[in-house]
Amino acid sequence: METLEKRINGFKSQDIMDTVGAIQSNPEIAKFIFRVRNQWIAGGHNRSSIKDFYGGCVEDESRTEPFVFDNSEPPILLGNNEGANPVEYILHGLAGCMTTTMMLHAAANGIEVEHVESYLEGDLDVQGFLGLDNSVRNGYQNIKVNFKIEGNITEEQRRQLISFVYKSPVFDIVTNKVPVSVSLI
Amino acid sequence: METLEKRINGFKSQDIMDTVGAIQSNPEIAKFIFRVRNQWIAGGHNRSSIKDFYGGCVEDESRTEPFVFDNSEPPILLGNNEGANPVEYILHGLAGCMTTTMMLHAAANGIEVEHVESYLEGDLDVQGFLGLDNSVRNGYQNIKVNFKIEGNITEEQRRQLISFVYKSPVFDIVTNKVPVSVSLI
Repeated sequence: METLEKRINGFKSQDIMDTVGAIQSNPEIAKFIFRVRNQWIAGGHNRSSIKDFYGGCVEDESRTEPFVFDNSEPPILLGNNEGANPVEYILHGLAGCMTTTMMLHAAANGIEVEHVESYLEGDLDVQGFLGLDNSVRNGYQNIKVNFKIEGNITEEQRRQLISFVYKSPVFDIVTNKVPVSVSLI
Repeated sequence: METLEKRINGFKSQDIMDTVGAIQSNPEIAKFIFRVRNQWIAGGHNRSSIKDFYGGCVEDESRTEPFVFDNSEPPILLGNNEGANPVEYILHGLAGCMTTTMMLHAAANGIEVEHVESYLEGDLDVQGFLGLDNSVRNGYQNIKVNFKIEGNITEEQRRQLISFVYKSPVFDIVTNKVPVSVSLI
């Protein structure tokens, strides 16, 4: 019965155990392929569609409609604000991934949390991207993440919660190198 | 007069020249700080708000409403598809940033393009993130980007267009290391 299911941080404990058990018995189901299709519109404005992916040894069919997001730029970066800009989406993905990772591992470790919020800042000098100063990197020079965590938790648990965020996939993507191959079709 | 303004790939040529000229006379205006505020909702569901940023030596005020995006997960990853997931947003940002970078540098180099689309795939093994196999990294193992570019362009220009995408800030963020500091407030 739904009401008797044990839930922690919004996750069903049984679901976490089932997922871990299934992967341990067949590691192939842990392999995912995520996909994005993007189309240029004009200037700094383009649009992505996100729907299908492969995971659990099958093509996922849980999404009936695609998620659609516009990248754009503000006027100071020669755009018209039709959407957030690509580097802002990176901060959004980083915030969300660190939060989800924290809450999932918290649930698996029996730590119940009431409230989590984060504030992220990234420093970016566009001289790099524009090719005006080769000593300036093109992407973020650094990113700061501040977490606020509330709940009936000990200081030890609070430290443990922060230690979980370093397992985040997007944290790994941003802080380490991912090989990206580019080709023309 | 608007109709006589020279536009290429949706950018006003004069705007590109003005921006480059302004940065060359005062490199401080090239320094941007982008920001995201995120709040956990439940389980793998959280929401970001993106509005203000610093750039051009001022706080930007061009956006009257925030951009709001939900991170979530599909059922196979213990969520309910309230949004794309964080690693999908990374592919979206990467696609958009490479496209915008290509089109801006194309405009600056007088290459007119009619149509650009891209298809991205990222391989991710969730054993890393779940802590089930320490030999598996937490983030993408690799990302493939396929571009389709159309227009009245030579093969040499086509190669040049692809060379521009490597200047993309998100390409740098993903393929190189960005320092991320995490703190509790």
